[in-house]
Amino acid sequence: MDKNDIQHEKFMDAAIKLARKAYENGDVPIGCVIVKDGKIIARGYNKRNLKKTTLAHAELLAIEQASKKLADWRLEDCTMYVTLEPCQMCAGAIVQARIPNVVIGCMNPKAGCAGSILNLLDIKQFNHQVEIIKGIRKEVCSQMMKSFFMDLRQGKINISKEK
Amino acid sequence: MDKNDIQHEKFMDAAIKLARKAYENGDVPIGCVIVKDGKIIARGYNKRNLKKTTLAHAELLAIEQASKKLADWRLEDCTMYVTLEPCQMCAGAIVQARIPNVVIGCMNPKAGCAGSILNLLDIKQFNHQVEIIKGIRKEVCSQMMKSFFMDLRQGKINISKEK
Repeated sequence: MDKNDIQHEKFMDAAIKLARKAYENGDVPIGCVIVKDGKIIARGYNKRNLKKTTLAHAELLAIEQASKKLADWRLEDCTMYVTLEPCQMCAGAIVQARIPNVVIGCMNPKAGCAGSILNLLDIKQFNHQVEIIKGIRKEVCSQMMKSFFMDLRQGKINISKEK
Repeated sequence: MDKNDIQHEKFMDAAIKLARKAYENGDVPIGCVIVKDGKIIARGYNKRNLKKTTLAHAELLAIEQASKKLADWRLEDCTMYVTLEPCQMCAGAIVQARIPNVVIGCMNPKAGCAGSILNLLDIKQFNHQVEIIKGIRKEVCSQMMKSFFMDLRQGKINISKEK
């Protein structure tokens, strides 16, 4: 992957747009798209509180949609764009789905598993490793998270969806 | 958790029974149940090839069902029984779902993430750690896997479902 490819910003913007939908629902604003052959084939945004399942992280929803579209559990030749560094579950799903490329908006120093706590995307003993580009639209992604948690602290988020 | 609790064998047997359904479908035989208050509240067996999505691992299907039943993404006070050591994605999902206890049939030295390659269930930097019991019905679980892969090599598994 070429870090300077202008396409990255375009696809990250699509992921950011999805993250804003999560924000509106009172879910942590994380968005994700999966791209193949220059086209978005799957979209997801965090619905953990909305759907009341931890499996409704943005990345998992996008992986599910992409697998359905390709009728294959292997998402080869795909690139995932995600606004926040994946957690351990989503990083694991990326490896299991054999996604070759992941582009990350901002990092998650307290819980991220693509380099922060550990890097599940590049463990030699696994049968698949993932190429990563970090920091595309970093400021926008990071600001969106900060704004969400500030709203949450100030009671501006509908916490009836929180438990 | 008490390793000698006779209940463990009963619930692992239920997981083994589910794993056999995966076997019949030509999917790697892995089964899982989630128990709360001494009762099975969710069941799953591997449907990766059947459903053509990597999200159809036994553990994820059981977590999804349990979350629906409890209407909560947090599976507190639950124990998961799974015939094979979880992969990185499923181990990650167990932590994300805050499941406190996991009972494992046999280990997966080449890919397992509850002690073999690494132990995602007990990483201090994460906000949740999981208590693990290993080796309940180990021989049965291990033999089922060996038998499956022998059948696969001998062409006895319907490999049209494999790709």
